[in-house]
Amino acid sequence: MDDDVPLILTLEDGGSGVSAPLDDLDREELPNENGGSYDVVNDASSPAAGDCCAQQSSARHNWEMNYQEAAIYLQEGENNDKFFTHPKNAKALAAYLFAHNHLFYLMELSTALLLLLLSLCEAPAVPMLRLGIFVHATLELFALIVVVFELSMKMRWLGFQTFIRHKRTMVKTCVLFVQFIEAIVVLVRQTSHVRITRALRCIFLVDCRYCGAVRRNLRQIFQSLPPFIDILLLLLFFMVIFAILGFYLFSPNHSDPYFNTLENSLVNLFVLLTTSNFPDVMMPSYARNPWSCVFFIVYLSIELYFIMNLLLAVVFDTFNDIEKRKFKSLLLHKRTAIQHAYRLLITKQRPSGISFKHFEGLLRFYKPRMCARERYLTFKALNQSNTPLLSLKDFYNFYEVVGLKWKAKRNREHWFDDLPRTAFLIFKGINILVKSRVFQYTMYTVVAVNGIWILVETFMLQGGNFFSRNVPWSYIVFLTIYGVELLLKSTGLGPVEYLSSGWNLFDFSVTLFAFLGLMALAFNMEPFYFIVVLRPLQLLRLFKLKKRYRNVLDTMFELFPRMASLGLTLLIFYYCFAIVGMEFFAGVVYPNCCNTSTVADSYRWVNHTVGNKTVVEEGYYYLNNFDNILNSFVTLFELTVVNDWYIIMEGVTSQTTHWSRLYFMIFYIVTMVVMTIIVAFILDAFVFRMNYTRKNQDSEEDNGIVLEKEISKEEVIGIIELYKRSSAAAETAQLQKMVLQMDKYGQLSTVFLGRRSRTKSDLSMKMYEEEIQEWYEEHSRKEESQAVLQEPPSASSSSLKPLSLRQRSQTVI
Amino acid sequence: MDDDVPLILTLEDGGSGVSAPLDDLDREELPNENGGSYDVVNDASSPAAGDCCAQQSSARHNWEMNYQEAAIYLQEGENNDKFFTHPKNAKALAAYLFAHNHLFYLMELSTALLLLLLSLCEAPAVPMLRLGIFVHATLELFALIVVVFELSMKMRWLGFQTFIRHKRTMVKTCVLFVQFIEAIVVLVRQTSHVRITRALRCIFLVDCRYCGAVRRNLRQIFQSLPPFIDILLLLLFFMVIFAILGFYLFSPNHSDPYFNTLENSLVNLFVLLTTSNFPDVMMPSYARNPWSCVFFIVYLSIELYFIMNLLLAVVFDTFNDIEKRKFKSLLLHKRTAIQHAYRLLITKQRPSGISFKHFEGLLRFYKPRMCARERYLTFKALNQSNTPLLSLKDFYNFYEVVGLKWKAKRNREHWFDDLPRTAFLIFKGINILVKSRVFQYTMYTVVAVNGIWILVETFMLQGGNFFSRNVPWSYIVFLTIYGVELLLKSTGLGPVEYLSSGWNLFDFSVTLFAFLGLMALAFNMEPFYFIVVLRPLQLLRLFKLKKRYRNVLDTMFELFPRMASLGLTLLIFYYCFAIVGMEFFAGVVYPNCCNTSTVADSYRWVNHTVGNKTVVEEGYYYLNNFDNILNSFVTLFELTVVNDWYIIMEGVTSQTTHWSRLYFMIFYIVTMVVMTIIVAFILDAFVFRMNYTRKNQDSEEDNGIVLEKEISKEEVIGIIELYKRSSAAAETAQLQKMVLQMDKYGQLSTVFLGRRSRTKSDLSMKMYEEEIQEWYEEHSRKEESQAVLQEPPSASSSSLKPLSLRQRSQTVI
Repeated sequence: MDDDVPLILTLEDGGSGVSAPLDDLDREELPNENGGSYDVVNDASSPAAGDCCAQQSSARHNWEMNYQEAAIYLQEGENNDKFFTHPKNAKALAAYLFAHNHLFYLMELSTALLLLLLSLCEAPAVPMLRLGIFVHATLELFALIVVVFELSMKMRWLGFQTFIRHKRTMVKTCVLFVQFIEAIVVLVRQTSHVRITRALRCIFLVDCRYCGAVRRNLRQIFQSLPPFIDILLLLLFFMVIFAILGFYLFSPNHSDPYFNTLENSLVNLFVLLTTSNFPDVMMPSYARNPWSCVFFIVYLSIELYFIMNLLLAVVFDTFNDIEKRKFKSLLLHKRTAIQHAYRLLITKQRPSGISFKHFEGLLRFYKPRMCARERYLTFKALNQSNTPLLSLKDFYNFYEVVGLKWKAKRNREHWFDDLPRTAFLIFKGINILVKSRVFQYTMYTVVAVNGIWILVETFMLQGGNFFSRNVPWSYIVFLTIYGVELLLKSTGLGPVEYLSSGWNLFDFSVTLFAFLGLMALAFNMEPFYFIVVLRPLQLLRLFKLKKRYRNVLDTMFELFPRMASLGLTLLIFYYCFAIVGMEFFAGVVYPNCCNTSTVADSYRWVNHTVGNKTVVEEGYYYLNNFDNILNSFVTLFELTVVNDWYIIMEGVTSQTTHWSRLYFMIFYIVTMVVMTIIVAFILDAFVFRMNYTRKNQDSEEDNGIVLEKEISKEEVIGIIELYKRSSAAAETAQLQKMVLQMDKYGQLSTVFLGRRSRTKSDLSMKMYEEEIQEWYEEHSRKEESQAVLQEPPSASSSSLKPLSLRQRSQTVI
Repeated sequence: MDDDVPLILTLEDGGSGVSAPLDDLDREELPNENGGSYDVVNDASSPAAGDCCAQQSSARHNWEMNYQEAAIYLQEGENNDKFFTHPKNAKALAAYLFAHNHLFYLMELSTALLLLLLSLCEAPAVPMLRLGIFVHATLELFALIVVVFELSMKMRWLGFQTFIRHKRTMVKTCVLFVQFIEAIVVLVRQTSHVRITRALRCIFLVDCRYCGAVRRNLRQIFQSLPPFIDILLLLLFFMVIFAILGFYLFSPNHSDPYFNTLENSLVNLFVLLTTSNFPDVMMPSYARNPWSCVFFIVYLSIELYFIMNLLLAVVFDTFNDIEKRKFKSLLLHKRTAIQHAYRLLITKQRPSGISFKHFEGLLRFYKPRMCARERYLTFKALNQSNTPLLSLKDFYNFYEVVGLKWKAKRNREHWFDDLPRTAFLIFKGINILVKSRVFQYTMYTVVAVNGIWILVETFMLQGGNFFSRNVPWSYIVFLTIYGVELLLKSTGLGPVEYLSSGWNLFDFSVTLFAFLGLMALAFNMEPFYFIVVLRPLQLLRLFKLKKRYRNVLDTMFELFPRMASLGLTLLIFYYCFAIVGMEFFAGVVYPNCCNTSTVADSYRWVNHTVGNKTVVEEGYYYLNNFDNILNSFVTLFELTVVNDWYIIMEGVTSQTTHWSRLYFMIFYIVTMVVMTIIVAFILDAFVFRMNYTRKNQDSEEDNGIVLEKEISKEEVIGIIELYKRSSAAAETAQLQKMVLQMDKYGQLSTVFLGRRSRTKSDLSMKMYEEEIQEWYEEHSRKEESQAVLQEPPSASSSSLKPLSLRQRSQTVI
C-alpha cells in the first residue's frame, strides 16, 4: 500500500505517481495533505512512512476530516453562508456541528417564538392569557439565557474575531443585552415600564436558520429602498406644493374644515393620496365652486395615477435587477463551494478527479440519511464521462443532482399488472374509464350542476338557522357521486399515483371534508357545522378546464413558499408596530371617546329608546384599538387595507397628540413599501414564468427534473466489496438485498429514475443560459488574477482553478 | 432620347439597356410601365414611339403619377393604413387626395367634437348652456350631414367593395344612420326621448384621423381583454364562494345588515373587493366574535392582494407581448410600403436604384414643404454607397431619415463670437459663469431657501384673506434673483440655445408667471391672484440635481403624448357612461333623497337651530349626481377613484331599482381594465427605458438622432442644372442663394446637421436589434414563397423581392 504525497508536492516534483492505475477504487489513500483545516492532530504522521496500520488509521481519520470539511463547504454553498465563517479548527468544528442540526435550529426557533408570544401575556395582555409579571419576566429571562447559550456556541464556532465582524450576530448581541437589562429591571421593579425595545424581539426570529427566506426578503426590501425613497420624495414634494396651493385656495371657505390650516391641508392631502377621504375632502369646496374639483383631479392624477405607479415601476425594475444579481452571486458562491470541496477530495495519485470511495465518504456527512444505492446513483448521475473518477466539471452539477429522489423504474405500467386475469381486466377497464375525456367532462358537469344547486339553494334561504333541518338529499346525492369518483380513480390509477397529483389530493380532501360535514349534520355535532360551508370549494375543480387557469394555479402553488415568507416578513413589521402602538395607544380608544373630533360618529355607542324599542347606534370603530396584541394586529391589517384608515388615525389623535399621526403615516409608508415589493414579486414571478413557457412552448409539459440511470449487477457487487472492506454492515446488507431481488427477477441491471420538482433556480438557469457562461468566465478570470497575485507563476500552471482556491483557503487558515 | 421599356419586359427579353450609363441623371425616362395604377389615360402612348414632345410630356405625366402613388404608399406605410384601401384609379385618387389633408381632418374633428359637445345643451343640460330642442336638433342634423359628406368622399375613394369590407367605416355608417333617424324624430316630436344611442357618438371622434392613438389604445385594450376576463372570472368565482360562505356564517347575526341575504352578501363582497366598505362591513360580526376577522383577512388576501395583482401581471405580460408584436407589424408594414414605392421609382435602364431626380419627385408629393436643399440632403443621407443611385437597401431607411431637420453647422461656438472684442469678453465671461457649477448650486440654494420661506410664510398665516396686503418684500427679492438669473442665462447662452432646453423653458415660464403674479398683486387685479399661488412650482427645479429624477421627469415628458391619448380614451368611456347615466339617473338624487337607505347620512341636508345659531348639517353626496354631463363626469371620476363609491351607488339604487347596481359595477370593471392598462403602460415604458439606459450606459447622453452631411459647391450647381431643366424657378433661386453664400464665405462645401428627437420606435429598434433581422428574413421568405406560387420561376430569379411585390400589386389592380 503506497502512502500518498499531497497534490501540491506532486506538482512540484514533476509528477511521480500521476500514472496511478484507474481501477484502484478501493486502495487506501492519503488525502491531499494541505487539504483539511482540522488535520492538526495528524500533521506529524503524514510525511514519513511509519507503522502501516497506524498510518492507515491516521489516513482514514484524515479522510474523515476531509469528508466532513468538504460537506461543510457544500452546506455553506447551499445555505449561502459566507466562507469567512467556515470553522477553522477542530474545536470550532465541534461547535459548528453542534450549532448546525435541526435540534439546535428548533431550539433557536422556539426561544424566538416564546419571546414573541410573551407579548400576548405582558402588560396590555389578551384578557384570557394574562400572566403575573413575575411569571412572564421569568419566562423571558429563561428564553434570553437560552439565546445567550446559542450565541456562545456561535462565538465558539466563529472565533472572537469573526464573531465581531459578523454584523447580524453583533446586532443580535446588542439587542440581547438590552433585553436582558430590561427584563431584570422589570423583575426587580415588579412593574412594566414603557418597553418599546420589545419591538426588537423579532430580531431573534429573523436570525433563526429556518427564517432564511425572511432575511432574504428583508435584504431585498432594504436594497429596493434607495430608489423607492427617491420617488417617495417626489411624491411628498408634490404633496407639499399642493398643500400650499390648497391652503391658499380653500382656506377662505370657512365651511371647509379640511384646508383651514397648512397642517390640516398637508394631513388631508396625505390621506387623499390613499383616496381614503375622497370625495368628502372635495365636497365643501365643490359645493361652493364646481370648478374646484379640478384641483383634486389634477392632484390625484399626478400623485395617485402617475407617481404611485412610477413607484411600482421603479421598485419592479430594481427587484428584477436584484433577483438577477442574487441568482448570479448564489450561483457563483455554490461554484466556489464546490471547488473548495473538490480540492479536499482529490488525491495525489489521481488529481484529475474524485473516486467513488471519497464521494461516498462526502455524502455520508453531507446527507447522512441517503442509502448506499442512492449514493452510488448520485455518483453515476454526476459522472458523465463514465470514467471511475469524477472530474471538477462533473462535480459542478452536484447541487442539481444531489436533490434527486431515486426510484427503481417500474416495469409494470399499472399497479394491478400482477393481479389475476379477471381482476386485471376489471381494473384495466376502470383505468381506461377514469382516464377517458367523457368521464372527466361528466365530472365537470356534475361539479357545475352542484355549484348552481348550491347557489340556488342558498338564494332560496333567507336568513334563519340553516342547520337544524335534516340532511338535504341533494347533499347526499352529490357526495355519493364524488365518493364513487374518488373510489374509481383511486382504484383505477392506484392509490399512490392518485395521490401524487396535487389536484387529486385537493379533490380528495374536499370530498373528505364534505363527508365530515355530512357526519356533523347527521349526528348533530354543532361545532363542526362550519365544514358544510366549505362545499362550494368543490367548484374550484372547474378551473382545471382551461390551460391559463392551470398555469395560474400551478404558479400560485409554486409561489406559495415565497408568498408565505413575504407574509411572515409583513407580520414581523406588524409585530414591531403593534408593540409600539400598544405602548403608546393602549386604552386610549373606547366607545364615545372622540366626541370632539371630526370622526365622532364612528366611535359613537348610544343606547336610546324610540317609542318602546331600544335602538343601539354603534359606530364600532372603538373596536379598532391597540388594547392587546391581537387587536393591534387586526387594527394594523385595517390600516394596511387603507380604506377609512384616517378614522382610526383621527380617533387616536383626538385622544393623544398630533404627533400620533406620524405613527400612522410611517406605518402607511412601510406597508406601501412591503406591498409594492409583494406586487413586484408577483409580477416578476408571473412574467418570468410566462416568458419561460413561451420560450419552451414546444417542449412537453414539465413534471420537474427527471434523470434515468442504469445499474448493472456487477457494479452493485463491486460496491458491496468496497463497503465490506470499510466494514459498513448496514450498507452491505442493503445492497445485497438489491442483488437478491435482481436475481429473483433474473435481471442483469435495474433502471432507476431520479426525480425532483423544478425550482426557480432551474428556471433561471435556463433563462440566463448564455449569460451564465459569461459569469463563469468572468469569475474564473477574477480568481486567476487573484491567484497570480498570491503565488509564483510556476505553481499556478497546471490546474489553475482548484489550486488557486487552495491557496486562498490556506491564506484564510 | 430612348424610350424605356418597363422592367419586367427587360427581364424577359434578356436585358437590353441594362448597361445604361450611370451619369445620366437628367435624361428623360419612362417609368416602369406597369408601375402606376393611374396611367389609364396614357396606356395607348407608351409602347410605340410617337411624337417626341408628346411622348416626353406623357412620360413626365406618367412619372408624376408614379411619384404620387409612391408618396401615397409611403404615407400608408407611415400611418399604418392597410394597402387594400390604396386608391385604385384616377377618380379614387382625387377623392383620396381630397380626404387626406389637414383641412379635411379638421372638419372631421370639429364635427365629431360638435356632436359630442351637443350633450352639454341637450335635455339634462348644463343650466347655463341649455338650448331649445329645435336649435340643438338642427345643429345635430347639420353635423350629421357633414359626416355623410365625409363618408361619401371615403366611399368614392375606397370603392363600394372596399368600403363594405372596412369594418370601422361600416360601423360608423350604421351609427350615422341610427343617429340620423333619431335626430329627425326629435325634430318632429319636438321633445327628447330616451336616447342612449347618443353614447355611440364617440365613434365619430374615434374615427378621426387625429385620434389614431386613441384607436390604437382601444385596440390594445380589446386585445388584452381575453386574459383579463379569464382572471376576472377567477376573481368573481372566489367572490361567489365567499359570498355563500359569508351568508352561512354571518346571516344568523341579525345586527349585521351586510350579509342578511345572498344578494347583499354578493354586493358587499364586490364592494369589499374595492376595499370601499372596509372595515365597516367587518365590524358587526367582529363585535360579536373577534375570530370572524379571519374570513375578511383571507378574502382580502386572496382577492385583493393576490388575484388583483395577478390581473396586473397578466395584463402587463400581454401588454408587453402586444407592444412587441405591434412594433413588428408596423416595421414590416413600413418595409412593404417602401418596397412598393421603390418599384414605382426605378426605371428600365437603371433597375438597381432610384436617381435623385425621381427621389426629388417623390418628396415633392410626400413632403411638399421641404425645400430643395433638404431634399438633396435627405437623398445624400440615405445614399450610403455614394453612387448616383439609391438602392433598395438604402431606401429602407427612408422613414428614419426623412424626419430629420437639417441645419447648416455653425462654425462659431457661441452666438456672440462675431461681436467686437470687449462685448465678446463680457459675454464669454457670463457664459463661463452661467455654465459653472458654483452658479448652478447657488441657484439651487436660492430655490431651496425660497421653498422653505414660502412654507414658513404659509404656515404663519392662519386663514384669512392673504391678498389684501402689500406685496411682501421676500417675493420681490426672490423674483429679482430669478430675473437676474434668467437674464444672465439667456445672454450667456444666447436666447435660442437657452430656450432649446426644456428645463430652461420651464424656469422661464415659472419666472414669467411669478412676475405676472407680482403685477397682479401690485395693481390689485383680483382675478389673477391665483398666479401667485403657483410660486412653489419653482421648487421643481431642485429635481434637476439627481440623475434619477432627471430620468423620471424626462420619461414623463416623453410619455406625455401617450398618456394624453390614454386619458382621452378614458374620457371616451366616461362619455358613454355619462350619457347612459344621465338617461337613467338624471334627477334621482337630491338633498335628503335617501332617508330610507343605509347611506342616508351622506345625503342629508338639514338646517336646524341650536340656541340662536343656525347649524347646517350637510352630507354633500347629493352633489354627486347625473344631472348634467359635467356633473356626471365628476361623479364618474369619483367612481374611478373608488373610495366610498358604494355611497353613490346605494344612493342611486335606493331611488331606482336594484339593477342600477349593474351600471356601477360594470363601470368599475371597465375603469379597472383601463387603469390596469395604464399601470401596465407606465410600468412597461419605464422598465423599457431603464433597460435601455442600462444597455447603453457607456454611450454619452442622447440628444436625439443626429446625422452630419457635407455638400460641395459642385453638387449644388449640378442640382441647379437639374432644376433649371425642369423649370422649377423657386428651387433654383433658393439654391443659387446658397451658392452665393458659400462664395461669400469662400467655402467650397457646407456641412449640415440633421437632427430629430428619439422616438419609442428608435429605442425599440435598438432593443430588438437581433430579432429585427430575423423578422426581415422571415418576412422576405414568406413573400418569396407567395411569389413562387404566383409566377413562373424564370421571372422571379433576378430581383425577387420588388418583383414579387409588383406582382402582388398587379393582382390587386
